[in-house]
Amino acid sequence: MTTHEERVRKSFGKQAFMSTLGAELTAVGKGLVEIRLPFSPSLTQQDGYLHAGAVTAVMDSACGYAALSVAPADHEVLTVEFKVNLLAPAASKVFVAKGQVKRAGRRLTVCTADAFAVNGEGEKVIATMLATIIALPLSGAR
Amino acid sequence: MTTHEERVRKSFGKQAFMSTLGAELTAVGKGLVEIRLPFSPSLTQQDGYLHAGAVTAVMDSACGYAALSVAPADHEVLTVEFKVNLLAPAASKVFVAKGQVKRAGRRLTVCTADAFAVNGEGEKVIATMLATIIALPLSGAR
Amino acid sequence: MTTHEERVRKSFGKQAFMSTLGAELTAVGKGLVEIRLPFSPSLTQQDGYLHAGAVTAVMDSACGYAALSVAPADHEVLTVEFKVNLLAPAASKVFVAKGQVKRAGRRLTVCTADAFAVNGEGEKVIATMLATIIALPLSGAR
Amino acid sequence: MTTHEERVRKSFGKQAFMSTLGAELTAVGKGLVEIRLPFSPSLTQQDGYLHAGAVTAVMDSACGYAALSVAPADHEVLTVEFKVNLLAPAASKVFVAKGQVKRAGRRLTVCTADAFAVNGEGEKVIATMLATIIALPLSGAR
Repeated sequence: MTTHEERVRKSFGKQAFMSTLGAELTAVGKGLVEIRLPFSPSLTQQDGYLHAGAVTAVMDSACGYAALSVAPADHEVLTVEFKVNLLAPAASKVFVAKGQVKRAGRRLTVCTADAFAVNGEGEKVIATMLATIIALPLSGAR
Repeated sequence: MTTHEERVRKSFGKQAFMSTLGAELTAVGKGLVEIRLPFSPSLTQQDGYLHAGAVTAVMDSACGYAALSVAPADHEVLTVEFKVNLLAPAASKVFVAKGQVKRAGRRLTVCTADAFAVNGEGEKVIATMLATIIALPLSGAR
Repeated sequence: MTTHEERVRKSFGKQAFMSTLGAELTAVGKGLVEIRLPFSPSLTQQDGYLHAGAVTAVMDSACGYAALSVAPADHEVLTVEFKVNLLAPAASKVFVAKGQVKRAGRRLTVCTADAFAVNGEGEKVIATMLATIIALPLSGAR
Repeated sequence: MTTHEERVRKSFGKQAFMSTLGAELTAVGKGLVEIRLPFSPSLTQQDGYLHAGAVTAVMDSACGYAALSVAPADHEVLTVEFKVNLLAPAASKVFVAKGQVKRAGRRLTVCTADAFAVNGEGEKVIATMLATIIALPLSGAR
């Protein structure tokens, strides 16, 4: 496992919320992270689709870890802000969020993520995120 | 209970994800909704704070229900998009999200929400949302 | 000229602000629009770079016209909202904004745009937009 | 004139784009800035209303200067990103953008702005912005 992958997997393992959602880290590249989220009735909104908050959570983690995968070794990352567009009802048995770095700066990294409904026929985009992440020296108070 | 409150409470009751998070609807006014979220270790990110996705989920529901509280009786609402700024670490035992209607249009309603960490000394804002909600005729296909 | 291109060019010609900025429509495809903006000292912020508002204006028009290029013939489009990330100082003699449709719905279309600084060596992305556009029947009051 | 007001006025005076738009700085408080923009046919979109880019430009400057008014004396500010919701057609003879600090951090400041159409009867909100601004040491390369 490469150093940046190890680092991302270690931090992901500490995100109890990802485990609560049932989310799984399925790919970690340099500036590219994929998270898989199986549907569960415990994650739904009023119509039985996945709640936007659950979709957002995995896109946020995908963006944050894409940023972490390109950050200096002695830095951690925090999400500053994001915008999400919900493009289609989150109706599927499996979803995947793919986050990638759009531009890595010294302090601020801008990432995008798409979330897809996965089924037999392929992937259909259901949501998209544009996010700003800040890299901070480890153990440094903001 | 007023009609709009009943309607919001009924729909909130169907959001399994709110119950998974442990979120509770604490106030419903015309164009104003509050949701309380107690801290839980199951909702955390890597540093032990509340995951941005959990905070976003309750702000999204607060905005959506604020919009629903002013929508025509034969309409339902869906979130089109939102932006969230994370303002401070979500470190507290209790959080509250307050959503309100900024402008209600015929089709589109714009809402804002603030999320607060609540403790003995009062409330501290930790996140803010600006959201667009669409009202659609009930059972109508989009 | 195709029908959708004619339609976009006609509307662009009515946007006095584009002419004030010195912006020019350089490409119109189905779901894809490019606008060129030469640098001018009249468009600068305090450091002599292009003002974010000028960059945003051409990205907004690029997104809106990308949406118009795929809208029904009897509809017009209006921007509902957008988010812009400024990625690098807008320092160049020429800029180009490229807008494209990400998902076209019946009412709402989501578009993205990138703005680039163009120079001898190529293009460098300086800003990115994620926008929501609504299509409305022509002459219909909202 | 207070120090922070002087500083904001000096920087605003260097924004050639504000002068091109015909925008005027009408109030500068600690964390609060107002910019007035008279309607001009040169600033319009295809229907004769103010172009979203013009409205955005003054809201962006209002947010940036609200952040500058609370920044350390040896720092300058740059806009990281913003989101704008267009709430009503920009139809009026005069507009005003009011920017204010929502939360000032050490590096990042979050601001909101509302833009209003001003007429005999009062003010009507036509757009709203949520923005992230970064403060950087003066003359320091990013």
